[in-house]
Amino acid sequence: MEQDILYHLALGSGSHDLVEMFSEIRFVCMGGTPKRMEQFANFIMDEIGYKLPAGTTLLDISYRSYRYSMYKVGPVLCFSHGMGIPSVGILLHEVIKLMYHAKCKDPIFFRLGTCGGIGIEGGNLVISESAVDGMLQPFLELPVLGKLKRRPAILDKQLANDLKNLHMDDDPFSVSVGKTMCTYDFYEGQGRLDGAFCDYNEADKLSFLKKVHDANILNMEMESLCFAALCYHAGIKAAVVCVTLLNRLHGDQVSTPKETLNKWQEYPQILVARYIKKQLGLPINIPQREHPQVVKNPKHAQMVRQESASFE
Amino acid sequence: MEQDILYHLALGSGSHDLVEMFSEIRFVCMGGTPKRMEQFANFIMDEIGYKLPAGTTLLDISYRSYRYSMYKVGPVLCFSHGMGIPSVGILLHEVIKLMYHAKCKDPIFFRLGTCGGIGIEGGNLVISESAVDGMLQPFLELPVLGKLKRRPAILDKQLANDLKNLHMDDDPFSVSVGKTMCTYDFYEGQGRLDGAFCDYNEADKLSFLKKVHDANILNMEMESLCFAALCYHAGIKAAVVCVTLLNRLHGDQVSTPKETLNKWQEYPQILVARYIKKQLGLPINIPQREHPQVVKNPKHAQMVRQESASFE
Repeated sequence: MEQDILYHLALGSGSHDLVEMFSEIRFVCMGGTPKRMEQFANFIMDEIGYKLPAGTTLLDISYRSYRYSMYKVGPVLCFSHGMGIPSVGILLHEVIKLMYHAKCKDPIFFRLGTCGGIGIEGGNLVISESAVDGMLQPFLELPVLGKLKRRPAILDKQLANDLKNLHMDDDPFSVSVGKTMCTYDFYEGQGRLDGAFCDYNEADKLSFLKKVHDANILNMEMESLCFAALCYHAGIKAAVVCVTLLNRLHGDQVSTPKETLNKWQEYPQILVARYIKKQLGLPINIPQREHPQVVKNPKHAQMVRQESASFE
Repeated sequence: MEQDILYHLALGSGSHDLVEMFSEIRFVCMGGTPKRMEQFANFIMDEIGYKLPAGTTLLDISYRSYRYSMYKVGPVLCFSHGMGIPSVGILLHEVIKLMYHAKCKDPIFFRLGTCGGIGIEGGNLVISESAVDGMLQPFLELPVLGKLKRRPAILDKQLANDLKNLHMDDDPFSVSVGKTMCTYDFYEGQGRLDGAFCDYNEADKLSFLKKVHDANILNMEMESLCFAALCYHAGIKAAVVCVTLLNRLHGDQVSTPKETLNKWQEYPQILVARYIKKQLGLPINIPQREHPQVVKNPKHAQMVRQESASFE
């Protein structure tokens, strides 16, 4: 076609010089909210020592779209993807096209998210090795021209392990690698009892969560299935790093104070920043001064198998 | 439970007096982006002649959530719902709970959206009578505790017709009532050829769109299935009013200038505002002065059957 309009990014191959703007990108980082990804953009800027020209500040490149936010920090591109598979799916299609138009070489994609832990207390990290849907199927099932298409939801094992190995002894969080359940609904889809509707009881829910836990699923969220499937289909090295906001074996509601939740949401950023720094040949073991911004989680390092004793 | 935390709205039954804040709500209006819904909030404020106390302005009540935006204008509550079924689903669960906690009486829900027309040119309105998924199934299929649950995606026929009857002869848009296809993906899910991947050709696509058109489906978007199904399940009177951004029988890309698209996005607001004014006993036929903000669409009033002649 003559030009490609990346409608939801408010960019186009005809209206923008995408090679000049984006060819240096090596890392694409995405997470749910614009606010969190703006914070990450500023955080990674300090971490990799990237300096903006005097008199400039970061701009949300996609602000005209009112859909996603996008910040560029040297070789790192940061996006908000909204909530759920359709929202992250639209973004991925357009970002993959953007990488193609910009002639980027082997960019690595990260999702930095939040999730419910299954047997893991709030404030700890889960790196997904693969994703399953609400029926425990390991693929994204998508109607295309009226026929169901299946795409395996596999993530890069080496990348997952490399990330896990960047955990440090004095981190206030634990890091686990395992399977992730990705659902199309937050309430009934994740077996919560506190949605607007619910026609099952506590016992039904716990029996479902036990089944999920027995399948070695460590967490539940709402984007990884599509993120894994589209990246795998495109041959993109990709990882999903999520912080748990609660242990679903103990409840449904997210009742932790906002300030603590905000601190927890920095944990995936800390781990991914270490990986990016290592790839860029920067030292990663300098004690952080201005950006520790981590709170000690009294319940951290509660490992899965210990937490799930009541089920066994 | 002791209190109900509406996590994605940044509200709670313990932390807020929801009855005091929301009991007067009679109309709940939602659409994709925060920007558009803020515009709608200001538009409906003028339309119904609602006055804010001196020295005050509208506040995004959910700004602390960084997920959705929420504006209250007297009896009208306005939300952004993001993109896709999961995003609108989370919002609906929490808004339905909010209406319950606030003891609202029979609120009517509207989705004011954008869509691709099937045989309808850009800049015209489609009111959904029901929704189907990408397999043309007329229900929302949702895994709950590992089992597939089906909820019929039916909208209120009377409300759809009442809205249609508010169309005026000199409106720059046509209004049609029909079925809507709701998909989980914007590119392959809607048979586009311009996504990051595509393993079918123009002929396959047109054959699919013809099948869709033959099933009396007038448009495609990404939220109506869940919106219809959850409202119907909750016994809430609901309508989906979308403006077409293009005629999918003629292309995939949204290439209309931004200014025109912005004008078109006001058309659903104009129709819904008339309905709200009528319900509130206000006159609806006053020529609009400060808020006409409508552009004459040269292609308006191209009706479905005419446009689809090439298929018959």
